[in-house]
Amino acid sequence: MGQETWAIGVDLGGTKVKVALVDATGQILRSLKKPTDIKGGPERIIAEISQMVHTLKEEGPASTPVGVGVGVAGQISADTGIVQFSPNLVWRDVPLKEKLKGFLDLPVVVTNDVRAATWGEWLHGAGAEVDDLICLFIGTGIGGGVVSGGRVLTGASNTAGELGHMTIDLHGPVCTCGNRGCLEALAGGWAIARRAQQAIGDSPAAGAALLQAAGLKQPLQDADLTAETVTKAARAGDPLARLVVDEVTNALIAGGVALVNAFNPARLILGGGVMKGLPELPARLDEGIRRSALKVATADFEVVRAQLGNDAGVVGAASLAFGHFGSGLQQDRCI
Amino acid sequence: MGQETWAIGVDLGGTKVKVALVDATGQILRSLKKPTDIKGGPERIIAEISQMVHTLKEEGPASTPVGVGVGVAGQISADTGIVQFSPNLVWRDVPLKEKLKGFLDLPVVVTNDVRAATWGEWLHGAGAEVDDLICLFIGTGIGGGVVSGGRVLTGASNTAGELGHMTIDLHGPVCTCGNRGCLEALAGGWAIARRAQQAIGDSPAAGAALLQAAGLKQPLQDADLTAETVTKAARAGDPLARLVVDEVTNALIAGGVALVNAFNPARLILGGGVMKGLPELPARLDEGIRRSALKVATADFEVVRAQLGNDAGVVGAASLAFGHFGSGLQQDRCI
Repeated sequence: MGQETWAIGVDLGGTKVKVALVDATGQILRSLKKPTDIKGGPERIIAEISQMVHTLKEEGPASTPVGVGVGVAGQISADTGIVQFSPNLVWRDVPLKEKLKGFLDLPVVVTNDVRAATWGEWLHGAGAEVDDLICLFIGTGIGGGVVSGGRVLTGASNTAGELGHMTIDLHGPVCTCGNRGCLEALAGGWAIARRAQQAIGDSPAAGAALLQAAGLKQPLQDADLTAETVTKAARAGDPLARLVVDEVTNALIAGGVALVNAFNPARLILGGGVMKGLPELPARLDEGIRRSALKVATADFEVVRAQLGNDAGVVGAASLAFGHFGSGLQQDRCI
Repeated sequence: MGQETWAIGVDLGGTKVKVALVDATGQILRSLKKPTDIKGGPERIIAEISQMVHTLKEEGPASTPVGVGVGVAGQISADTGIVQFSPNLVWRDVPLKEKLKGFLDLPVVVTNDVRAATWGEWLHGAGAEVDDLICLFIGTGIGGGVVSGGRVLTGASNTAGELGHMTIDLHGPVCTCGNRGCLEALAGGWAIARRAQQAIGDSPAAGAALLQAAGLKQPLQDADLTAETVTKAARAGDPLARLVVDEVTNALIAGGVALVNAFNPARLILGGGVMKGLPELPARLDEGIRRSALKVATADFEVVRAQLGNDAGVVGAASLAFGHFGSGLQQDRCI
């Protein structure tokens, strides 16, 4: 076993596609990355993924991989592996699993990219040894994945885990999804930038200080003010940026309380780009959730930082392939 | 099989204890009910339950029941069947499973009462034939249970499903649990009464009409104004009561949106005492949730009314006994 047993993980996003050889312990043996050729359409992207897999196979171990796992930024049909809709890739009803199987002559399993990352963190990252956990990935948007009783939840139509769209502020600001007061509309990257923009408008003098602390110059371009610049200004001690970060933290605590009371996880794992700018967030969330959630629900609970970073997707997708096609390596996990 | 195969279901609440003989199809063959002798303490209550079981067994089929399932209003240790804490019964660390096993010489399984009711509705009520559903029981408080992928979720410390304590209004009113803006603090029976009391205080003239519509006289006693009187006044067309019911409906829609986006259930089942006074609620929630939840999450979704009423607890507890100790009757369900 060991190095001889391996799978291929694919992380297919709107900006880049990453393919990796991953062993049964979650170690990446080799990987390749390319920008996603969205204009080329599904045929072109699938051909490129196949080419990347072939290249890696030639350089990889002599044994045949157990299979291919693919995480895609989009809505996937669990049974057929069809990508029903991906706004990032501009795909509709693309039979990704069948096409890749045809090119590769290997078994293929397709899932959502956030769910793949959840698999990765669960089996080989911050969630190892735990059967009940929640991953919350805070990037431009907020995505999530839930493991309960040793299984990744999928739901009735394979969309379970849209944790960024849990209502936490009934009368709150409008979300991109059309609902009001979603967690994402208060704490996602785009919402942080929106809130900072609004705060600067409300208080131009304080706003000028924020922009200076973030290293930005006026007149401001739309693209300048991001969650990253806001968290940078907060770390530099700017009061307005700190206020925005406090609001974001409180929103995440409220969302965390809802998640903990509903799912009773042993661990809440925080990942995603926004997290990088907020080093104190896990500790603040741990304290805040513990204070406001039911005591019985936090008896066995902690907030931790994700461990795999940008590799979570490929590692998780490969783990899914191991789970589906492997030789009993993870039979102790109910898949 | 059929009538010959049966289990015993026990529903142990703070006001009454109910014991029933239930067959494999969820039919109640016979049942007994008594007020809960809380002052008698655990020993007395457990002896009474045993007596009721013996009485029913003597009157029941000649065959031995497969086992006993008990639903208790409290926090249960899944492994040991110890009632860790029950505010309603005023119990702490009562080894209910072991004690009952000693008295009855039958296998015993203990669970939380709301989870037992979820089992009942799932297998023999409004959730039959569905593998992904959520039960929301709206009584004085709000409790819930979640079935995902054909399993009732339990969580890391057996408290999953505290859906009444999901934050849906970050800045909302304080809940009995200490948190702010819980679903229960906006839509539970006690919260409906509190909101009506407040509305009457804010607008005495409109309040007098509400009280009249509800058939209440002034001066009002604290106990007079309940969720039942408010919903009664709303049905009688009182504008203030209707306003309160509209607020409650909107809170339940927000909570329903959070649940649907997070869990992706095929069905949301509404039960509990408050539901009885709100005949239009399932339809309003169905429409509201469908409008505000993610389209992909409501592709296969409906809101329905619970079917078993007060029998859900005993039927569910007995079903749990079938699942744990039965002869493969429900092996198609992953328990």
